[in-house]
Amino acid sequence: MVLKLHGLSVSTNTARVVACLHEKDVDFELVRVDLFARGNKEPSFLAKNPFGQIPVLEDGDITLFESRAITSYVAEKFKETGTDLIRHESFDEAALVKVWTEVESQQYHPAICPIIYEFFGKPVQGLEPDQAVIDANLEKLEKVLNVYEAKLSSTKYLAGDFYSLADLHHFPYTFYFMKTAWGSAISDRPHVKAWWDDITSRPALKKVAEGMTFGENQ
Amino acid sequence: MVLKLHGLSVSTNTARVVACLHEKDVDFELVRVDLFARGNKEPSFLAKNPFGQIPVLEDGDITLFESRAITSYVAEKFKETGTDLIRHESFDEAALVKVWTEVESQQYHPAICPIIYEFFGKPVQGLEPDQAVIDANLEKLEKVLNVYEAKLSSTKYLAGDFYSLADLHHFPYTFYFMKTAWGSAISDRPHVKAWWDDITSRPALKKVAEGMTFGENQ
Repeated sequence: MVLKLHGLSVSTNTARVVACLHEKDVDFELVRVDLFARGNKEPSFLAKNPFGQIPVLEDGDITLFESRAITSYVAEKFKETGTDLIRHESFDEAALVKVWTEVESQQYHPAICPIIYEFFGKPVQGLEPDQAVIDANLEKLEKVLNVYEAKLSSTKYLAGDFYSLADLHHFPYTFYFMKTAWGSAISDRPHVKAWWDDITSRPALKKVAEGMTFGENQ
Repeated sequence: MVLKLHGLSVSTNTARVVACLHEKDVDFELVRVDLFARGNKEPSFLAKNPFGQIPVLEDGDITLFESRAITSYVAEKFKETGTDLIRHESFDEAALVKVWTEVESQQYHPAICPIIYEFFGKPVQGLEPDQAVIDANLEKLEKVLNVYEAKLSSTKYLAGDFYSLADLHHFPYTFYFMKTAWGSAISDRPHVKAWWDDITSRPALKKVAEGMTFGENQ
């Protein structure tokens, strides 16, 4: 039975899961959830995810939400196909993937997410971005990126010399971040820039990027 | 070789790992990091965690940080001893543990963490708590707890009828939250209250609580 992914290809959190599915060469059906018509607040959707957020993955009898839980499930279930994203053959490497996946979740995401929301999310709602919020979070993000620059000068990817979920999880928000005026936070740090250039040249991520047209004419 | 945990028993993020180690009946040595003397910003500590945060776990040659990555590592490495926190014998149950562990990380934590910081963290630094920040986050927290109340009316614990990492991860922040004036957010929701009473009666968590004296005379 083919996996059903409820979401939108322009959405960061959907894109995180789509990127993982492409890396694993797993077929899936994307079921469009119309956020503008509040399709995510319909009872039928809330039965799948009580938080009313996309994406949701249905795999036979099991229904999963939270993008990072879904990628972890997919990477584990299909560990023998496509790119190994969790280093399942090395316990120590797998542990480092967990560490840097949590770094994305607890250090990088809380800084970059408000910037993307202010820059892309607010105008859609007819609201003015709050530059003070952007500036405060850029400062936080730069500190995180200083750690990344040092780390990436000693290993090619975040968890080690191997591409993993830890890198992949950064893709969607960073992709939109590079469309703002502050992309130099990435491109002025040589090792971070090399890492970003490397991961965005991956066929799986190029394919995801095609659907990430938020902020363009649509 | 005994595990070395660098941290402080009063710290929420250290307590999350200590709780897991107790549940797994794993011996460890707690190496005190003196945050007041900025021991976490010393080069020797930054070499272990470049973000300069506690806790850090050293297990032989491997050094891990980010409390949720450490608990996940410990629960996996010692899966045969103590409480099974990751449901390693059922792929579907393990997936639901991942989902609700991410819910803690992405829904619950971003709401409760600023409340704990304003209430406990700011006064220590001689700063005044910002009631507007507390109120905004209480509102977010109540929405999350509404989902928990519904979920916990159909299953005994968050991921199902089994205690797991998903429940355990909530312990430290909620423990301190119950010492604030707003604990009714938990205790006025009957299923959430029953869940909280259940997990706080676990010997492993009672033992952790003994060290969580932040805000008391010290």
